[in-house]
Amino acid sequence: MADIAGPSFFIGRGDDSLISFGSGQPDMPPPPQAFDILKTYESFKYGLVQGEEALRAALCAGYPGAQAEEFVVTNGASEAVDLVLRVISQPGGRVLLPRPYYYSYPHNVALAGMTPAYYDLEKGKINFDTFAKALEGCLAVLINSPSNPTGTVQEVDTLKKIEKLCAEKGVYVISDEVYKDIIYVRENYLLHGPRVVTVNSFSKTYAMCGLRVGYIYSQNKELVGSVIEMKTHTAMNTSIVSQMMALAALGAPESYVANNLETWKARRDLMYNGMKEIGLDLWSPEGAFYVLPKFKNSGRAVRELYETYKVITYDGAWFGAPERLRFSYALDAGKIQEGLRRVKEFLGKEYASY
Amino acid sequence: MADIAGPSFFIGRGDDSLISFGSGQPDMPPPPQAFDILKTYESFKYGLVQGEEALRAALCAGYPGAQAEEFVVTNGASEAVDLVLRVISQPGGRVLLPRPYYYSYPHNVALAGMTPAYYDLEKGKINFDTFAKALEGCLAVLINSPSNPTGTVQEVDTLKKIEKLCAEKGVYVISDEVYKDIIYVRENYLLHGPRVVTVNSFSKTYAMCGLRVGYIYSQNKELVGSVIEMKTHTAMNTSIVSQMMALAALGAPESYVANNLETWKARRDLMYNGMKEIGLDLWSPEGAFYVLPKFKNSGRAVRELYETYKVITYDGAWFGAPERLRFSYALDAGKIQEGLRRVKEFLGKEYASY
Repeated sequence: MADIAGPSFFIGRGDDSLISFGSGQPDMPPPPQAFDILKTYESFKYGLVQGEEALRAALCAGYPGAQAEEFVVTNGASEAVDLVLRVISQPGGRVLLPRPYYYSYPHNVALAGMTPAYYDLEKGKINFDTFAKALEGCLAVLINSPSNPTGTVQEVDTLKKIEKLCAEKGVYVISDEVYKDIIYVRENYLLHGPRVVTVNSFSKTYAMCGLRVGYIYSQNKELVGSVIEMKTHTAMNTSIVSQMMALAALGAPESYVANNLETWKARRDLMYNGMKEIGLDLWSPEGAFYVLPKFKNSGRAVRELYETYKVITYDGAWFGAPERLRFSYALDAGKIQEGLRRVKEFLGKEYASY
Repeated sequence: MADIAGPSFFIGRGDDSLISFGSGQPDMPPPPQAFDILKTYESFKYGLVQGEEALRAALCAGYPGAQAEEFVVTNGASEAVDLVLRVISQPGGRVLLPRPYYYSYPHNVALAGMTPAYYDLEKGKINFDTFAKALEGCLAVLINSPSNPTGTVQEVDTLKKIEKLCAEKGVYVISDEVYKDIIYVRENYLLHGPRVVTVNSFSKTYAMCGLRVGYIYSQNKELVGSVIEMKTHTAMNTSIVSQMMALAALGAPESYVANNLETWKARRDLMYNGMKEIGLDLWSPEGAFYVLPKFKNSGRAVRELYETYKVITYDGAWFGAPERLRFSYALDAGKIQEGLRRVKEFLGKEYASY
C-alpha cells in the first residue's frame, strides 16, 4: 500500500480516471481582466518591498477606513503568516491554534521558533469559555473563519468577545480570512483591534493560487514596519507581474465574485445533501469549500479510496481531526456526483471488513 | 540633515535630477522572449512547490551533470538564502560571512536563529589561511563570488581549497553566485561538494529583479527535500507566471547574455578609469557591477552627495566596509559621466571642510 503521509503525496497525480476531493483551490478561472493586462505588460524592476502602491490603494476599498500603508503584499497568505509569526516571535512564545487546524499552522508556529497550543472546536465552532481558558499565557492566537478544513464560520458574537479579550490581554490576533468571500450564512466579519493582523489572499476569491498574491492588513504600524523590514531580507517584493494581475482582478465587475459564490453554493448543496444521503456524519458547510465527515479508520480509508476507487481525499489527522476525512468541493457537479457514487460504493463494500 | 539609515531610504526616490549609483539592478530589459509568452498566458493553479518541472529541466543545461530534482525555484535568491539557512539552522550555530558582505546576510543568519561570524577580505579577496582559521566551529559558510559589494571575483585555487576544507569538516557551503554571468576576468567557477548549495537567480543575468525568480541547486538530496518541505508551509510555489517568464528567458539566444556583458564591461571601464582620474582609491572591478572606493567620513559623504549633489550612493558601513562608498554602475554611460563629474565637484569642495 502507498505510504500516504500528507497532502503532498497527491500533488501532480491528476490522471482522468481520478476524482480529486483533495486540493483546496478553485477550478473556475480568474477574471479575464487579470490576463488582459499581460498583453502589454513590460515592467521588470524591483518594486516596493511593501507592495505596489496602486494595489495597496485599491485594497483599501475592501477595508473601511484603511490606508495603503497598512498593507503589505506577500507571496500568498502562506508568506503572510510566516512573516507575522517570525516578527512577533519570542523565546518560549505560545501561539493558540484551533483544532482542527489548517495543516500548515503548527509548522508555521514551530518554524518561527514558538510552540503551538491548541483548543478544541465543538462541531467546528469556537466555545468562547474554552478559548478564554486556553488563551492564558499565549502570545498570539490564530483565528481562521471561514475555516479550512471544517467549513464552518464563527459566530460574530464570539469573534467580538475574542477581539475584546485579546485587546485586554495584549495578545496578537492573526485572523486568516482567505475564504472571506465564500460565506453562505452571513457577510464576513472583519476582526479588528490594536494587535489584530488580517491575512488575506487573491487565491480563493479570484482563483489565483498559483500566482501567489496575498497580503496582511493591520493598523499596528510597528508590526507592519517590522514585516516590511524582514521581507527586505527574506524575499524582497512580491512578483510584480503577479501583483499587476491581482490589481486587474480587483477591477473585475462585482458579478465575478457573486457568480462564483452561486457556483460554490450549488456545489455545497450537492456535496452536503449527497453525503447525508449516503449516511455520512458531517457539519453543515457555512463557508469555504470543505466538509469534514467522520470516517472510521481514516488513514486506511484515504488509501482504499485512492487505490481501489480512484478518489483523492485528505486524512483529517493531517488537520488535527483524526477519524474524519477532508473533502474539497472545488470540482464540477458531474465529478462531485461521480465521486460520491464511488464513496458510497466504498462505504458499502469496505466498512463491512473493518 | 536626512537620517539615511540604509538602502531602503533611497527606494522610490527617482526624480530626473538625481543620478543613482544606489540600486543593484540591471537597467537593460529582459530578453523579449520573457514578455512574448505573456500574450497567451493562462495558467492560474498551484504549481509544484519545488518549481515547474520544465524550468528545472531547462536549468540543468547550466549545471553539468545536474538533474531537475536537484533544483528548487524560489522567490529570488533572497528566499533561497532564507530557506537554506532555516533548514540547516541549529541552536548556537555560527555562519561564517566575508566582510565586506551583502547587507542582508547578517540579517538572514540572525533571522534563521543563528549567529554570524566574520573574516576580513583583503582588497576584496579571500586569504585562505584567514578563512580556515575563522571557519573553526562554524556550521556553514556563505561565499559570494562575484561579490556584492566589492566587485571582486575569488581565485579558483582559493575556491577549490575552500571546497576541500569544508567537505572534510562537514561544513555547509552556501555559494551565492547570482553574478555568475557578469564576470570580466574568467569563466565562473561553480563550487561543488556534498554540502554545497548553489544560490542563483534570474535577476542579474536576465534583468528580472522584480519578477523574483531565484533557485537553489544542490546534490544534497536531504537538504533539497527539507527546503521543499519548509517552502510548502512558508510560501508554496514561486509565482507560476514569473517562472514561465524565466523559462522563456532561458530560451533567448546566447547573444543576449554576451551583449549585456559587453555593456557591463564598457561601463566598468568608464567607472573604474573615471574614479581613478578623480583620485579615488578602489579595487579593480572583476565582476558584478559595483565598486567600493574609499571615502573619508562615509556617512556624511552619502548625505552630502545626496542632498547637495543629487547623487545616490550607499554607505560602505551598511556592508561592513566603513569609510568606503558602494557605487553601482547599473546606469547608462551618460549618467555615469555626469555622476562622476558631481562626485569630483564634491571631492574638491567638501573634503576641504572635513
